[in-house]
Parts: sequence; structure tokens; C-alpha cells
Amino acid sequence: MTAYDDQNVFAKILRGEMPSEKVYEDSDTLVIMDIMPRGDGHVLVVPKAASRNILDISAHDLTTLMATVQKMAKAVVKAFDADGVTVQQFSESAGGQVVFHTHVHVIPRFDGVALRPHTGEMADAAALKEHADKIRAVL
Amino acid sequence: MTAYDDQNVFAKILRGEMPSEKVYEDSDTLVIMDIMPRGDGHVLVVPKAASRNILDISAHDLTTLMATVQKMAKAVVKAFDADGVTVQQFSESAGGQVVFHTHVHVIPRFDGVALRPHTGEMADAAALKEHADKIRAVL
Repeated sequence: MTAYDDQNVFAKILRGEMPSEKVYEDSDTLVIMDIMPRGDGHVLVVPKAASRNILDISAHDLTTLMATVQKMAKAVVKAFDADGVTVQQFSESAGGQVVFHTHVHVIPRFDGVALRPHTGEMADAAALKEHADKIRAVL
Repeated sequence: MTAYDDQNVFAKILRGEMPSEKVYEDSDTLVIMDIMPRGDGHVLVVPKAASRNILDISAHDLTTLMATVQKMAKAVVKAFDADGVTVQQFSESAGGQVVFHTHVHVIPRFDGVALRPHTGEMADAAALKEHADKIRAVL
């Protein structure tokens, strides 16, 4: 596996070198809005410690990561009155990974509503903030 | 959320009331081949304790579940010389869940090869056994 490269976007966000719409933070994890959401309320859970993906993350970091994933799954269901939630983790390009710092997608889901396709288009910042506000309100 | 119903397929497999192609087992988790695989080597990681999905699983069960998910992610990459891996957890019908006992999909991925669509068709049992043998060989 390729070595971890600390110039990835999430490493820069963690260092405060790039902006993000932060939803939640604790000692081990950061949660931000996905800027290309596949559904309203789509968040990314990011471990603060460096790892590339599920193939090299430490047991400790995986445990704390998933605790926050569960917290966010419950939060997005509550915040959006969702009918379900989809959790995804992509490792390496073939697996669907685009940013090479471990992260987990948490997407609130609604009966009869498919995930939006990846268009590569960025969401409106005001809409992301509004969705983040909804999630923060239930945390 | 609907209460856990122990008549689901995975509960029956865990009780030995239905067959499955078992890949791995420890005190907390069971790994079986998905009978409608979205790619060769697609496995399901199932906690032995009862829970419906990520919205009600205990912290302990989530931790041991994810430890086995990571073990399987590494194993399927090695067994199939895969280029990556996709991990998915669906909660409630809207989230993509079909069997209402918590489980995580681990799918080896290859450059340029998309996931197969859900056709509802069951895989050939001999092919599933062959893929399970490959994974068991690297564990």
C-alpha cells in the first residue's frame, strides 16, 4: 500500500490549513459536511490520527472512529427525521476512495429517495451550514 | 425504531437453523459469504449478539464487529490480490438494509471493475465455496 501523504485535504483541514463546515469534534475524531453530498446531511467522520484507510488504521483509531460514526448515524436520523442511514468506507481508488486519509461516510436516507450521483459539483456553502446547524442542534 | 426480530436470516444462521458458507468465526463475530455478491469475495461480517443495525448495536459489539471487518478487509485484499476494498453498513430499509440483524459488507475491489448490480439472483454455491477457500487460506 502507498504510504500516508500528509498533504491530503483532510490532513490540511485537521491542521487548520483549509476550511470546512465542522459538525462535531472530540479528542480522536472530527466530523465535517461532505462538500459533494450524495444526500442532504451527508457527513464525513475523520480520525485525527494519520492513517490511509481501513487497511492501516490502528485498532484504537478504528474504535474511536466508529463510536463517532454511530453517534453521527443517530444524530442525522434525528436531525433530518430520516428513515434510515447508509454508512460507507472506501479504501484505495479501486474501493472508491478519493482522499487518502481514513474517513467514513454517514448519509441520512429517506424512503424512496436514491443517493444522488457523484457529479463533482460542490454544494452551496449556505445549504451545508444549514444542514450542519440541524445536526449540531441534536448533539 | 422497530424492535429486533430473531426470525431474521442471520439469527437463523447463527443458531444453525439455516446453512451458510462460513469464512471465519470468533467469540463475537461470524463471517459468511454474501449469497448475492456484488463482486467475487463479497463477505458479510455479523455480530453474534442481537442488534438490528448501527442505531442500536452496543459499543462493545460495534468494536468487535469492526475489528473483524478490518481483519476481513485485509484478508480479501490479500486473497484476491485486490486493488482496494469497499465497506458498507446499511441501517433500515431506506438505508439499504434487507436483513434486520446488524451486518457489514466487505467487498474486494479491482481497478476498472464496478460493483455488480443487485439482481436478486443467488450465486453458484461452488463458486462461493471456492472464494471462501481463498479467504480462509490467508487467515
